[in-house]
Amino acid sequence: MWGIIATWRMAIEGIEEAGRRLDDGAESGDALEAAIRIVEDYPFYKSVGYGGLPNENMEVELDAGFMDGDTLDVGAVAGIRDYANPVSIARLLSKEKVNNFLVGAGAEAYAHKHGFERKNMLTDRGIAHYQKRKKETVDKGLSPYSGHDTVAMVALDEHQSMCAATSTSGLFMKRPGRVGDSPMSGSGYYVDSEVGGAGSTGLGEDIMKGCVSYEIVSKMRSGMHPQTACEQALNQFEKALIRRRGKSGEMSFVAMNNKGEWGVSTNAPEFSFCVATKKEAPIVYLSHRDEAGHCHHEPASEEWLEAYARRIKAPII
Amino acid sequence: MWGIIATWRMAIEGIEEAGRRLDDGAESGDALEAAIRIVEDYPFYKSVGYGGLPNENMEVELDAGFMDGDTLDVGAVAGIRDYANPVSIARLLSKEKVNNFLVGAGAEAYAHKHGFERKNMLTDRGIAHYQKRKKETVDKGLSPYSGHDTVAMVALDEHQSMCAATSTSGLFMKRPGRVGDSPMSGSGYYVDSEVGGAGSTGLGEDIMKGCVSYEIVSKMRSGMHPQTACEQALNQFEKALIRRRGKSGEMSFVAMNNKGEWGVSTNAPEFSFCVATKKEAPIVYLSHRDEAGHCHHEPASEEWLEAYARRIKAPII
Repeated sequence: MWGIIATWRMAIEGIEEAGRRLDDGAESGDALEAAIRIVEDYPFYKSVGYGGLPNENMEVELDAGFMDGDTLDVGAVAGIRDYANPVSIARLLSKEKVNNFLVGAGAEAYAHKHGFERKNMLTDRGIAHYQKRKKETVDKGLSPYSGHDTVAMVALDEHQSMCAATSTSGLFMKRPGRVGDSPMSGSGYYVDSEVGGAGSTGLGEDIMKGCVSYEIVSKMRSGMHPQTACEQALNQFEKALIRRRGKSGEMSFVAMNNKGEWGVSTNAPEFSFCVATKKEAPIVYLSHRDEAGHCHHEPASEEWLEAYARRIKAPII
Repeated sequence: MWGIIATWRMAIEGIEEAGRRLDDGAESGDALEAAIRIVEDYPFYKSVGYGGLPNENMEVELDAGFMDGDTLDVGAVAGIRDYANPVSIARLLSKEKVNNFLVGAGAEAYAHKHGFERKNMLTDRGIAHYQKRKKETVDKGLSPYSGHDTVAMVALDEHQSMCAATSTSGLFMKRPGRVGDSPMSGSGYYVDSEVGGAGSTGLGEDIMKGCVSYEIVSKMRSGMHPQTACEQALNQFEKALIRRRGKSGEMSFVAMNNKGEWGVSTNAPEFSFCVATKKEAPIVYLSHRDEAGHCHHEPASEEWLEAYARRIKAPII
């Protein structure tokens, strides 16, 4: 069995490529890295890699994490600027003996030394988004924070090895140096090949209060199906946040166990995700939560997919 | 009931101060912050704050985290240079709506804007340690990494509110920008006032593979005594690391539940820690693990304490 699951519609081209590789017997880490690089490279995905939305100083600062479920190796970068593929840097860091998580200038120095591609990650479209958002919020004295669509993936290969990884430009209009859950093992992602893995997207500042990816894997370890694990972890944590704080940020989770069974949960009005397994061709699903706290997934319609394609390329007015 | 527990002998002066405050009815966050500031300010504690050991570029880069067990608020800084009290910056960040975790120059800009004390954190003694270590390792082609003694504390106040926090200069001779477990919620610390809290010290690169502080709190949530929770979490995780990787780094954990009961575990040859509760005057314990995996704590002898005091001030040859 092999399989891969990812947050958001933007992952589908990557999932298709990873599916081909996994079906050819590729290792989960290679397939997953290739998949995330495709998302990072595409200029119209505005929350990951090239074309990612900038911070309040109009700088694109990127975060990524990578975990190997066989060895539990973790690698991560945060606040890295002007490198094309943060997920590949995170993956290489996961193979270091120590110093696996590097931030800011230190992460950039490491990437430079290891020959990673330099690239100005700020696009004209990113600048236009920034200027529009600033005009609509900061200039009127309103809070500017918006958007935090991390790509998070979990992959299983035919050898039953698993990996998980994330990549994101983080909260739009964030403060310089802000780190969300995405590079943090346990919060943004977690994987153990003996059990399964999970990844998250949403308000990182809330997700890191609950180490939710780790919690989902813990629930799977106790025998729970990934779907139940995702729903229970989300619903219990969201309830705790509301009881303690009066509110909860938006968050969504994807998980897969080492049999290729998968699950998804969300408290957003709608959450798109992608999945491919040996038994299931790459597909975009839409998930909605019902009043009982269960999440229902149905394939995205042609109409929805076309509207998405138009929206991400629409002129910014 | 009130109580506070902390990693390492270096915490005792802080624990004494926190104990006085908690006995006077102080909030756990205030007592805990005051305690860690005392450790940060003392020049002879070479792994935290002023006098902390530098990275491979001879720069002192500091990490700290703070969590409020009532609200689950998290604040953290990593790779911050030349500010006297990282724990206070982390605590203020925990009160922000978003952007709670800042790194590098972004963290410094925030600290500057909020009037935190600037201080050159590199001491002559820090430089001497660096030069000695470099001569003994790098200059001979050996790995230089050594020492990672984070101060981690968990506090409970009379109102049954709990907090946890950490502060460290991180791995001695680390790469610039390296982040360990200390600023990461779930790995370096975790606390929930409805249950209890935990904090860690040791090889951060391993601790973050297991989100061990979160795991200890999960075990306490299921009804386990803090001592059993600390031992089981360490022993299970260490076993997993050895099975997957052939080895495990050194790590030690302290925990307290919301009744003031506490626990400690370590896989180091000896681990010192400090505790004070309404029923127990501030004291330094030494912990050792037996062959069955249980950790036994006995008060540090006068002889041990005197040798410690001499050692931390001894000339560096």
